[in-house]
Amino acid sequence: MRFLTSGDSHGASITAIVEGVPAGLPIEKEYIKKELLRRNKCAGRSQRMALEKEEVVILSGLRKGLSTGAPITIMIPNSEFYDLSEAQILQIQNDLPVSRPGHADLNGMLKFGFKEARNVAERASARETAARVAIGAIAKIFLKEFNISFASAIIQVGEIKSSKKITFEKASKLDAYFPFSDKNRKKAVLNLLENFKERGETVGGKVWASAKGVVPGIGSYTNWDTRLDAQIAYHLMSIPSVKGVLIGDIENAVSLKGSAAQDQFADSSKIFYKRKTNLAGGIEGGVSNGEDIVATCFVKPIPSSKFSKKGLNLQTKKKQAPQITRADTTSLAPVAVICESLMAIVIMQNYLEKFGSDSVDDIKNNFSIYQKRLRK
Amino acid sequence: MRFLTSGDSHGASITAIVEGVPAGLPIEKEYIKKELLRRNKCAGRSQRMALEKEEVVILSGLRKGLSTGAPITIMIPNSEFYDLSEAQILQIQNDLPVSRPGHADLNGMLKFGFKEARNVAERASARETAARVAIGAIAKIFLKEFNISFASAIIQVGEIKSSKKITFEKASKLDAYFPFSDKNRKKAVLNLLENFKERGETVGGKVWASAKGVVPGIGSYTNWDTRLDAQIAYHLMSIPSVKGVLIGDIENAVSLKGSAAQDQFADSSKIFYKRKTNLAGGIEGGVSNGEDIVATCFVKPIPSSKFSKKGLNLQTKKKQAPQITRADTTSLAPVAVICESLMAIVIMQNYLEKFGSDSVDDIKNNFSIYQKRLRK
Amino acid sequence: MRFLTSGDSHGASITAIVEGVPAGLPIEKEYIKKELLRRNKCAGRSQRMALEKEEVVILSGLRKGLSTGAPITIMIPNSEFYDLSEAQILQIQNDLPVSRPGHADLNGMLKFGFKEARNVAERASARETAARVAIGAIAKIFLKEFNISFASAIIQVGEIKSSKKITFEKASKLDAYFPFSDKNRKKAVLNLLENFKERGETVGGKVWASAKGVVPGIGSYTNWDTRLDAQIAYHLMSIPSVKGVLIGDIENAVSLKGSAAQDQFADSSKIFYKRKTNLAGGIEGGVSNGEDIVATCFVKPIPSSKFSKKGLNLQTKKKQAPQITRADTTSLAPVAVICESLMAIVIMQNYLEKFGSDSVDDIKNNFSIYQKRLRK
Amino acid sequence: MRFLTSGDSHGASITAIVEGVPAGLPIEKEYIKKELLRRNKCAGRSQRMALEKEEVVILSGLRKGLSTGAPITIMIPNSEFYDLSEAQILQIQNDLPVSRPGHADLNGMLKFGFKEARNVAERASARETAARVAIGAIAKIFLKEFNISFASAIIQVGEIKSSKKITFEKASKLDAYFPFSDKNRKKAVLNLLENFKERGETVGGKVWASAKGVVPGIGSYTNWDTRLDAQIAYHLMSIPSVKGVLIGDIENAVSLKGSAAQDQFADSSKIFYKRKTNLAGGIEGGVSNGEDIVATCFVKPIPSSKFSKKGLNLQTKKKQAPQITRADTTSLAPVAVICESLMAIVIMQNYLEKFGSDSVDDIKNNFSIYQKRLRK
Repeated sequence: MRFLTSGDSHGASITAIVEGVPAGLPIEKEYIKKELLRRNKCAGRSQRMALEKEEVVILSGLRKGLSTGAPITIMIPNSEFYDLSEAQILQIQNDLPVSRPGHADLNGMLKFGFKEARNVAERASARETAARVAIGAIAKIFLKEFNISFASAIIQVGEIKSSKKITFEKASKLDAYFPFSDKNRKKAVLNLLENFKERGETVGGKVWASAKGVVPGIGSYTNWDTRLDAQIAYHLMSIPSVKGVLIGDIENAVSLKGSAAQDQFADSSKIFYKRKTNLAGGIEGGVSNGEDIVATCFVKPIPSSKFSKKGLNLQTKKKQAPQITRADTTSLAPVAVICESLMAIVIMQNYLEKFGSDSVDDIKNNFSIYQKRLRK
Repeated sequence: MRFLTSGDSHGASITAIVEGVPAGLPIEKEYIKKELLRRNKCAGRSQRMALEKEEVVILSGLRKGLSTGAPITIMIPNSEFYDLSEAQILQIQNDLPVSRPGHADLNGMLKFGFKEARNVAERASARETAARVAIGAIAKIFLKEFNISFASAIIQVGEIKSSKKITFEKASKLDAYFPFSDKNRKKAVLNLLENFKERGETVGGKVWASAKGVVPGIGSYTNWDTRLDAQIAYHLMSIPSVKGVLIGDIENAVSLKGSAAQDQFADSSKIFYKRKTNLAGGIEGGVSNGEDIVATCFVKPIPSSKFSKKGLNLQTKKKQAPQITRADTTSLAPVAVICESLMAIVIMQNYLEKFGSDSVDDIKNNFSIYQKRLRK
Repeated sequence: MRFLTSGDSHGASITAIVEGVPAGLPIEKEYIKKELLRRNKCAGRSQRMALEKEEVVILSGLRKGLSTGAPITIMIPNSEFYDLSEAQILQIQNDLPVSRPGHADLNGMLKFGFKEARNVAERASARETAARVAIGAIAKIFLKEFNISFASAIIQVGEIKSSKKITFEKASKLDAYFPFSDKNRKKAVLNLLENFKERGETVGGKVWASAKGVVPGIGSYTNWDTRLDAQIAYHLMSIPSVKGVLIGDIENAVSLKGSAAQDQFADSSKIFYKRKTNLAGGIEGGVSNGEDIVATCFVKPIPSSKFSKKGLNLQTKKKQAPQITRADTTSLAPVAVICESLMAIVIMQNYLEKFGSDSVDDIKNNFSIYQKRLRK
Repeated sequence: MRFLTSGDSHGASITAIVEGVPAGLPIEKEYIKKELLRRNKCAGRSQRMALEKEEVVILSGLRKGLSTGAPITIMIPNSEFYDLSEAQILQIQNDLPVSRPGHADLNGMLKFGFKEARNVAERASARETAARVAIGAIAKIFLKEFNISFASAIIQVGEIKSSKKITFEKASKLDAYFPFSDKNRKKAVLNLLENFKERGETVGGKVWASAKGVVPGIGSYTNWDTRLDAQIAYHLMSIPSVKGVLIGDIENAVSLKGSAAQDQFADSSKIFYKRKTNLAGGIEGGVSNGEDIVATCFVKPIPSSKFSKKGLNLQTKKKQAPQITRADTTSLAPVAVICESLMAIVIMQNYLEKFGSDSVDDIKNNFSIYQKRLRK
């Protein structure tokens, strides 16, 4: 499965083409839309999000509700865009002469040879992740056939850390609006968000995401780029505000002695490869070991807000206050959804590689052969 | 530039084929060997390393000391291997019936259908990284033509953290044998290593690596997989003992307010895009901004040592003590070198994509056009 | 530059996402549309083509008429589709229980596990090539900046062969409606098409296509997949009705002696690498030599028409007459346009690789450095 | 499965790294060597070939005779090379100031910025194909597990065409030394070769190659680059002297009426998808249909020999006689072997994609599920 995404933040639509989805998968637009809304209707987001209706149009690859094996085209129209006159479009896509630090603005202007930042800001926007959440929704539908499920949580907001150890089960029960993992401190967090919103301040934190049900043997150590942890890091680090990716509980393990940092085999379990702990986050040697796949993302505060007093005007080479186009307080809640989506994409790709392609039924048969072999 | 590596830990050689190195690059075997020895002759490594002579044989792609544009084949023979009889080879490649937790062993056995772990352990071994250090050496030679240099440091060993803020300049001056960044605590660290070695214990920590001199505009936000930070994370997370990758100073920024987490433009500088700080680690929006590229790796303790009392015997399905084949105390020092190498590979690939290919002279000319445009 | 296409023949639209088009390219929708109509409004095509309006919608990647470096999304809506009710859509996408020999029908049904052929026929349709003609139009706009132009011709229709040697100049002057290269036999050809159309018969032939202005040094012999001729063959052989690809005049050279099959250097020419002949079709050793790039495609007769009396009904396992959904007499004229488009795509990709990316202006500067070097 | 090859014609070795060969495949060096010798010890080749001993060294990926899933490194040493002094190496790799038309020489010199042709000639040499024949041997071993076999034949030498229709069965019985398909004309052909050899003349022709036993459903029409015919054309056109690739009997079909150009379903057969004819060469719509996969290559006469009177000296910009380093009379017999090898590689890659990866036993189980589905 491979894909390309496209679309400008204030353009006609966000679009994705996904090639290699096997035939026979029941894909409901409503489920994709639901995932998109999880990314959108959450605490910490600005008014603009309310305008994004996240309608999903599937332009190809689906017939009678089932995937056909042909490329699937998902379009998420910017509904507001279609009622605009040419002049209005030029207005909302106006020139941005001043670059904002923390964004791709200046780097993109230098890279491509632009005098202003609009051309950069449109595509460097995190709006692109909507396309990948849509693709992730398809991956989740696929992986559900193999009993794989996903959960995520926010475990730190600025200086406020969750005091509880997060687990898949706990994360599954958190509310989608703002899945902070520590009930006792959630009110403090929401107050902080409210307060920051008023002041035009922003905040970062940490997001935890996990996949349950992945069989052992996914990913490979045979070349560097097939390692499952490396693939997950590649995808998660591509989320605009993510600047750090950890697998499992390495933040803790980094200061442990080796003898204390092992996930010992369970003393007795129906599943012979079961472990007592999961410091490794379900991946050893680049290959899944049957435990939950676990990753944590470090999320930076959104860099532009009222406080962005000094950007750079490339034409005057002077510092100047930039035009601020968005006002989310934090990207933590959307990042949680995006993490799940990207993990789902990676795992689906690896399942297809291991268990074959083309027909969901065939793949399920192949998978059950593998499961039988594991049990032997 | 693309490459494949091969080679089994106790096999005939580690080999790499590198396609797309432009013609006209002066490649000295001695420099590659020097980089390989940096990975090898350092504190925390076992006796076996002393045996690895890291001779470098270049089988193709070089003539009269210059790259020819043809694929370069680098072979690092396991010199010990060549004097062995067939029987001795079988002996050092003996069956490993018991899998070790923390390694790919069991996962690889289940994946490929093996009854024992030798077939897995040979390739899942970190010995593979020698090939990438050799490729990285070529990348460093290439990037030197563009005034890019690399440095790395160990900033945490187990519970002992460096108390100093690391910088490129400081890292450049650390000794290669064990580049711990805090002079005052170095003795404590070396004592810890000595003590752990005696006890057969292992330890992890954190490694910092950086590239200086990368121009703004490298990497791209246009699709997720072209983002420079994502590419770096992909490569670094593929290092066997690395389980976490951070870009810049996100560990700090994660709890800052947005207004405090920006890298403001410098007040006055000959370089108009110069920043006052570098929290972003030289990458904003997936694109280089001209500051040092900075990444930190979280390194787990080596999972197998004398303490590995309980592995799994897949044939008996019983827990059992595994055969321990290596005894490094920590992989921190080699990881530092490997990080530099992989960053060099990523940056070289992005330079080739941006500034063209084939001839080093042409690329340098194209690069100088870009530099002129930036200065305008 | 990479791309994915999508879209079902009787679905909502044909779509393409193109990543890596450098910034600053003036892209006019009208030009893309013109190229699409060349593919469509030509002799040998059925009534349905008249319905295809080939409107072009660019959903992203363009601002103020210039490419922005962001992915370009081109949508070619099936205009008829949008006025249809759900029931009508089901009607035009009705089940096709009988597979047609010569098409992907049965093979696709077996591959994906379908009981009927509609799911296959929708995507295996040559309608997909519209997306690549649109991408090719962008490539042509790009390559025009480097003085590269394209021409094509039909040189054989069934048993009627052109008696003239085709050249780039002659091909440039042929009419787009049916660019048969032999004026004297054109009437016979059009009569044949008319006659075959009435009888529901189809016909194949040969198509010639060429690119003028490609500098020496494009493509590479360093690994098999970088060879320019191999890349061209890959693309051209992917055109649904093409079953053969020749480079240059190999059909002739195959029976010549070696001494007679060489393109000798010209006796005197301002361009030192100029040749007297071009048997090699502008490519020697997988690399362009400065002569016109020339390829010929062998095109099979469209396999389904009134004569398709016996397909296979997979449910009954009986032979049966298939439903015939299209009635073009020949695909020769569209194939000519598609060949140009695909050659343009390949050449653009190789130019970007050799001369760098991101900004059209930068690339042109890099290119002129190369030209200066060649002249030295 | 992916691979890179390397090696210079007069360098230390030809090398290949192959990643993704599933575990459990019995790989015998002797079989690889046998395939290499088929490429080498045949009519039309020069004395030098007698020197190439085609010893095969497998440096990794094999243990106890079985593939381990790790990358396989195949080295074919240039045995003569190892006994040479540094001075002798410089001698056999001496500068080639004069480029030869028909070769990559001048194009490569211009591309990479060389003043002489040695750097080009070393890698552009057809010697590289030895690496791919070795990889193809592994692919054949793999595909034998799925009852797929290969055959090839020479069907035209210069002006002498075989008068017989070639079939898989006939091709299987031809002698490896020079598998010309027409017994009656073989003497004439060998005389021609002898005569040409004496005169230092060269000759081209046509090579036919085929794979038997490929199940329907391999390859895909869903995107252009997954089409089986396109993939085969990509590989075959990358053979240095091949300038044309045809699939099936298109040379004939190109002038047939559509009603006569169909491969009708057989009237009665145990295999329901069996056809009466195989004009399509086993591929319809880019997907295998269960018939033999058939391709024909157009091979140009080797461009350099005694007759190469005029090359170009880039330093003087004058025409001049080039140094002639090889003296094969024709590449037809090696091309036949290479064609089989490359078809095997393509088909293996597609089998792995469709039926999964990692373990030969698993893949065979998955395959048998598919076969059962087909029979239903």
